[in-house]
Amino acid sequence: MLTLAALSLRLRASSCQGSWRSIATVVSGNKTSKLVRERLKKEVDNMRTQFSGFRPSLVVLQVGDRDDSNLYISTKLKAAAEIGIDAKHVRLPSSATQDEVLQSIMSVNDNLSVHGLIVQLPLDSVNAIDNELVTNAVSPEKDVDGLSCINAGKLSRGDLNDCFIPCTPNGCMELIRQTGVSVAGKHAVVIGRSKIVGAPMHDLLLWSHATVTTCHSKTPDLPQQVGRADILVVGAGRAEMVRGEWLKEGTVVIDCGINHVPDETKASGKRVVGDVHYASANQTAAYITPVPGGVGPMTVAMLMENTVRSAQRFLLKNQQHR
Amino acid sequence: MLTLAALSLRLRASSCQGSWRSIATVVSGNKTSKLVRERLKKEVDNMRTQFSGFRPSLVVLQVGDRDDSNLYISTKLKAAAEIGIDAKHVRLPSSATQDEVLQSIMSVNDNLSVHGLIVQLPLDSVNAIDNELVTNAVSPEKDVDGLSCINAGKLSRGDLNDCFIPCTPNGCMELIRQTGVSVAGKHAVVIGRSKIVGAPMHDLLLWSHATVTTCHSKTPDLPQQVGRADILVVGAGRAEMVRGEWLKEGTVVIDCGINHVPDETKASGKRVVGDVHYASANQTAAYITPVPGGVGPMTVAMLMENTVRSAQRFLLKNQQHR
Repeated sequence: MLTLAALSLRLRASSCQGSWRSIATVVSGNKTSKLVRERLKKEVDNMRTQFSGFRPSLVVLQVGDRDDSNLYISTKLKAAAEIGIDAKHVRLPSSATQDEVLQSIMSVNDNLSVHGLIVQLPLDSVNAIDNELVTNAVSPEKDVDGLSCINAGKLSRGDLNDCFIPCTPNGCMELIRQTGVSVAGKHAVVIGRSKIVGAPMHDLLLWSHATVTTCHSKTPDLPQQVGRADILVVGAGRAEMVRGEWLKEGTVVIDCGINHVPDETKASGKRVVGDVHYASANQTAAYITPVPGGVGPMTVAMLMENTVRSAQRFLLKNQQHR
Repeated sequence: MLTLAALSLRLRASSCQGSWRSIATVVSGNKTSKLVRERLKKEVDNMRTQFSGFRPSLVVLQVGDRDDSNLYISTKLKAAAEIGIDAKHVRLPSSATQDEVLQSIMSVNDNLSVHGLIVQLPLDSVNAIDNELVTNAVSPEKDVDGLSCINAGKLSRGDLNDCFIPCTPNGCMELIRQTGVSVAGKHAVVIGRSKIVGAPMHDLLLWSHATVTTCHSKTPDLPQQVGRADILVVGAGRAEMVRGEWLKEGTVVIDCGINHVPDETKASGKRVVGDVHYASANQTAAYITPVPGGVGPMTVAMLMENTVRSAQRFLLKNQQHR
C-alpha cells in the first residue's frame, strides 16, 4: 500500500520522534484543518471581491444552555469569523416548545440571506421535542450538517454531488486523502453505525469505491474484522477499545472517538482519549490520527466548507435566474 | 449455524432430490410469496369488513409501451386483483414530457383515495426526463417502491418503522427469515450497491444487526470476501458470477440476478439464470434461492405488502383525526 515517497515520509517521521518502534505517521487534524480553513478564507475573500461584499452566512440554533454545547458553538463561531463567514448564534430558552423551535427554523429557511443552518444537539429543553422532526425541518438546501433524511438518502445512494455530507465523516475522508493512500479497491472497516459518524462514513468509503465492512456492538469477531482493514475508521464511543494487536501491518487508522478517562496526573483529574489504543496501534498502523488534534478539528473545518459550498450554490442559482 | 431441525430438513431435502451431493435446501420464492399474498388477502378482507368496503389502492404509472414493462405491470395488476387491492394502470404516451409526468404524479399524490404510487422504470419517452426528479416527486407517504431520497435516508439511518422498504431487498429478508437462520451477529456479504437492490439490502441486514460487507465491481478479492459470508445476497447483474467454490460451508445464498443466457435446447433459444452458479453453489450452501422462482416473485409480493401497510397507516391517521 505504501509508495516509496510515503515510506520515506514514515521513516523520517519515525526517526523525528526519536523511537524506531513508533512507526505510524501521525495524520494531524490540526494541520489539515488549518489548511482547509486557509483555503476557505481565500475563497470567501474572492467571493466578497467578485460579488460586492457578499459573505456566506451561517445560523447556529441552540435550545437551552448546556456547557458542552456552548463550548462547541463558540469554536464554530470563532472558525467562521476567521474565515469571513457571517455566523449568527440564535439561542432559544430551555422553556422553548417544539413549535417555537420549528418556527425559528422556518424563519431561517425563508431568509434568503442565510446559506447554512445547524441545530446544535442535544436540545436542552424542559419540553419534549422530537429530534428527528427538528432535524428534518431544516431546508435540505441549508442543511450544512447533512443530517436530514433527504441528504442522508442522497449520500447513501451515491448522489454525493447533490447533497451535504455530514462534517465528521467528511473530515475523515480529508484526512485519508492527506495520507496519499487511495481508497478505491481497498478494504475499509467502519466501527459504528451512528447517523453522524458510522453510517455516512460507510457511504463515503463505499462511493469512493472501497469494499466496506460495517461493525458494531453486535459484531462477535471484532478483532478479526478489524484485522482485515486497509483503512479503519472508528466511531464506537468506547475508550481505547481497538488494540494495536488487532491491526494489519500498514493500516490507515482514523479515530473519531472523544472519551474522557480518569488521570490523576492531570489538574482536571482526567484526559481525552480516542476509541483506539494509540500507543499500541501506533506500532502497527502506517498512518494514525491522534486524539485530541485528529478528527475533532476537521469536523468544524468541514462545517465551514459546507457553508461556503452552500453559498456558492446560492450564487450560482442566482446567476442562472438572472 | 445449523440447528438440529434445520439439519434434518436439509438432509431430507437432499435425499428427496435423490442425490447426496446436492445439499442446499431450496428457499422457494414461489411458495413464500404465495404465503405472503394469502396473508395479505386476509388482511384486506378484514379491512373491507371493518371499514365498510374500504380497499387499499395502488396506481402504476407507465410512460410509453416497453414490452418488459408491460409484462411486469400485468404481473403486479394480477397480484393486486387476487389480494383485493384496487390497482389502476395509468399509461402516458411516449410523447409525454417531464412536466406531464410530474403533473400526473402530483394528481395521484393529491388523491386521498390512493395509498400507493409506483412509476414503472425505465421511462420510455422520446423526451429527456430526469428519473431522480420523477422518483422524488412521488409523495413519501405513497412511495411503496421505497425509492425516494426520504425513504432511502430513513432506511439507511435505521428508521425502519417509519419508511417504505424497497421491494426486492424486503423480499430477500423474508426469504432469509424462512430459513430460520437469525441475522443478528452474522457476517453478511452483499454484492452490488444499486439503489433498488444492493444499497437497501446492506441497510436491512445492518439494522437486523449483521456485520455487513458490501462488495462491487471495484472489489479486487471477491472470492475471499464471499468466502467469509454466513449470509450472501447477490445483486450484481452478471450471469453465474459467484461460484460454489467461493462459498463457506453452510452459507445462506440469496440470488437477485435475472440474466438471459443463450440455450439452444430451449424453444426461445435462451434461459434465465441468476448471478450465482447454482449447480456448484448448491453443493456448499445450506440454503439457496433458485432462479427463476426465488427472489423474483417476492418482489411483487412485497409491493403488495407495502401497499397494504400504506393503506393501514392511512386508516390509522384518519381514525386519529376523528
